[in-house]
Formats: sequence, structure tokens, C-alpha cells
Amino acid sequence: MQKIGKYEFIAEPFHCDFSGRMFLGHLGNQMLNAADFHSTDRGFGMKYLMTINRSWVLSRLAIEVNEMPTQYEHFTIETWVESAMRFFTSRNFCVTNGNGHICGYGRSIWAMIDTETRQPTDIYSIDNAAIKNWIVDDRPCPIEKGGRVRMSVNVELVKTIQVTYNDIDINGHVNSVKYIEHVLDLWDIAWYGKHRLKRFEIAYVAESHYGDLLDFYLEQTAESEYCVRLAKTEVPTGNQVEVCRCKLLFVQ
Amino acid sequence: MQKIGKYEFIAEPFHCDFSGRMFLGHLGNQMLNAADFHSTDRGFGMKYLMTINRSWVLSRLAIEVNEMPTQYEHFTIETWVESAMRFFTSRNFCVTNGNGHICGYGRSIWAMIDTETRQPTDIYSIDNAAIKNWIVDDRPCPIEKGGRVRMSVNVELVKTIQVTYNDIDINGHVNSVKYIEHVLDLWDIAWYGKHRLKRFEIAYVAESHYGDLLDFYLEQTAESEYCVRLAKTEVPTGNQVEVCRCKLLFVQ
Repeated sequence: MQKIGKYEFIAEPFHCDFSGRMFLGHLGNQMLNAADFHSTDRGFGMKYLMTINRSWVLSRLAIEVNEMPTQYEHFTIETWVESAMRFFTSRNFCVTNGNGHICGYGRSIWAMIDTETRQPTDIYSIDNAAIKNWIVDDRPCPIEKGGRVRMSVNVELVKTIQVTYNDIDINGHVNSVKYIEHVLDLWDIAWYGKHRLKRFEIAYVAESHYGDLLDFYLEQTAESEYCVRLAKTEVPTGNQVEVCRCKLLFVQ
Repeated sequence: MQKIGKYEFIAEPFHCDFSGRMFLGHLGNQMLNAADFHSTDRGFGMKYLMTINRSWVLSRLAIEVNEMPTQYEHFTIETWVESAMRFFTSRNFCVTNGNGHICGYGRSIWAMIDTETRQPTDIYSIDNAAIKNWIVDDRPCPIEKGGRVRMSVNVELVKTIQVTYNDIDINGHVNSVKYIEHVLDLWDIAWYGKHRLKRFEIAYVAESHYGDLLDFYLEQTAESEYCVRLAKTEVPTGNQVEVCRCKLLFVQ
């Protein structure tokens, strides 16, 4: 079996936006599917991990897009493990459209947790560190790694939403892709008519649950660069807890 | 080519709810994909219709589910044309899981419009009424047809949301599946923990657009039966315009 997995997808009509280009959330979802297919085929996928009370948890995701697949377009996602340490592994993605053009790249960082204690566990403990056999060190991923998203302390609260039934996945948390969608909903159609999202980066900090109120804090950090902090309010204490941070780079 | 089309899908993890069963919105989306594959393969799909300024418009959809596909489960959707008249055609669906159990059925009614005038056009005008060659009259679809959703005049307004970027499809309208998701979000997780959605029926009345405020009016019409009317407020006049009506039947 090849170290790099390659999976085919199609840009479904209802997964495309008003301009006919695929929503970034759906591209992110297909990257996560590709990651799941790749790891399942190689013996360390979610389905197997569930049987031993382990789970992959997405910690960071960065996506850069040059040319988003358009309605009905076939595209492939290649994915491979770039590195694996005891508590984190990094996995990269390359998206290519039907004409062989590279649409974009992705970088992700994953931890593994014990699903009962919700604590990080040793990735090397799975099948005698088998993941190390799948590391690809000669395939470049020419986009920047996700870094710390730096934001000011006092940033404008621009929106609050309540978590609903459709946000929640089998773990009882808001799913990773829904955060991306909610953040992208902060900009209006007119903005997307004039700007293209070139890079989206998200760092997951804490989980949020059904009924939580999610506050969106927005800061413009450079020309066409915006950072968003999501926070939830804990019910008994009223404390604000950071849920995730995002950085978006638009181009005209 | 067979008159009945059969397409394979998988219940993706992020398309499943807290209980591990696929969200009804995603099942609806896959039915619409199956419809598109089937009609495309037979010469009257959306992609071809776009080239002649025509489009299918979904008028009604009813889905009945006995056993929703669960996370990672493979399932197939069969779809066929039940009847075709000048201004409406009906298309049915049968969903079968990996074990060969029938998960459920769907019924849909479609009109064809001129994409420039937005007026209904003659379905028979496409390729000399070719659709009539694909009618299947010997395959039953053992669920009730969608009927008129009867509601009282004065019904409680339970929620208002604003249409966002992720709701809008290439036609500039809220996509058909998003209405289903927004309606299902009216019930909380605790309800879905105790009840299973057996039947969902939606009749589309008018299109809604970016920025519209959607009002959700809810009425309980029988034990475990609920009807929902969605209305938007037109900006210049302040008139309420009905967007769609839904009927939901839950079982315990």
C-alpha cells in the first residue's frame, strides 16, 4: 500500500456557494473524510480506535485555496502523514481538480485521546507505533504551518449564536466543520462577491455542546486579514471559555 | 440503460447526529444527488438544462424513514420517474442499507422553469418528451404522497433566523436542504433522544434570499405531529410571504 492516499470526490451542487464554487466547509469535510479513509486503510482509523476507546481529535487545520472546485467538478484529495510524535501527528493534503490543476493544500495537527477520560494518549501505543511506517518525508506541502493566532484582548463581539441539533456530532460536541461554516457566515454575500478566501486557519481549544451560546469576536489584523475568537459562556460560573481561534486571509 | 437508477453512498461521520444516525438533511441531499445523477445519465439533468436556460425546481419532498443509516454505513438510493406531465413530474426514491434492509422511501414533485423568466416551462419540450420513455409504472413507493399541509391562521412564532452565506446556492436562493435543517433545529437534543423522526414533508412555495429574515411558525396538529410554516418579510412592503410548509411525524 502506498504511503500517500488518493481519494476522489465531486463538488456537489448543494455544497457550492452562490458563485458555483465549493464552500470551504465542505472542502474541509472532504479533507477530514480523506484523512479517515487513509488512516482506516492503514489500521489506525476512527472506526478501529472506537473499539479500544481511543479517538483522533483535530487540533489545527489550515487550508489554502488557489482555485476552488466548481459545481459538478471532480477533484481528488491526496493525504499523507508528515510526522508523528507521541502526542501529536501532522497530516497534509493536496487537492487537485479534474484538469490536473492543484486547487490547494491543507495542513492538520491531530492528537489522540482516551474517549473515557478525554485525556491525551500515546499515539505510539497503537500497534507498536505503526504510524511511523507511514511517514512521508519527501512530499512538500508548500503552505505555511498554522501558527499561534494573535489577537488583542479587547476585540469586538460581532455575533452570538446558540448551538443547535445540526451542529452536534456523535461525540456530543459541535463538529469541527460547523465552526468553519459559522465563522464564514460572519461575512456577507457582497463581500464574497468581491473577495476570495485564500487561507483559513483554525486552532481548536475547547469543546462546545448543545445549547451553548457561542460568541464571535472579530479583529482585523492586516489588510484583508481577519482573526476570529469563539468563546462560550459556562453556565454555572458565567466564565467565558475560549473554544477556537481562526485566521482568514482574503484576496480580491 | 435501466429505467431505475441506483447510486451508492456512505453515511459520513460529520453527516451523522449525536446518536450516530445520519441527519435527515443529508439523506435528503443524497436523494437530490441521486435524482441529478439519474436525470443527467438520461439526458435531462441540471447540467444540460443550464445550457438551454432551463432548470428543475423542487416543489415537494416527502421522506419516510424506518431505519436511518448509521455512521460509516454504506447505503444505496434507487430513484425513478413515477409520472411526467407537462408542468410537473414525480420522482420516487428507495433507500437500502448495506444489509439489504429498506431504510426508507422518498417522494418528490418537480417543475421545470425558464431560468431567465423564472416561469414554469413545458417538460415535454425537452428532447421531444423523452422523459416519458423513463416512466416506471410497476415499482411501488409505499408511502403516502405529500398533501396540503393544513395549519391554523394564528400559529405561534417560535424562531426567527437571518439567511447567511452558507444557506445560499448557485441560484442565489436558500437551498432546499437548508430549510430542512433549519426546521429540524426547532427541536432540542433531548427531544431527539426520545423521539425518532418517521416522516418529513416539505412543500416549497417561494424563494428566499441572502439577508432575509425567516420566521418559523409551529403548530402541533396531532399527537407527535407538527406543522411548520416559514415566512419571510418583504423589505419594502413589510408583507409576510410564505416560503414553505413542513409536516413532521415523530414516533417514540
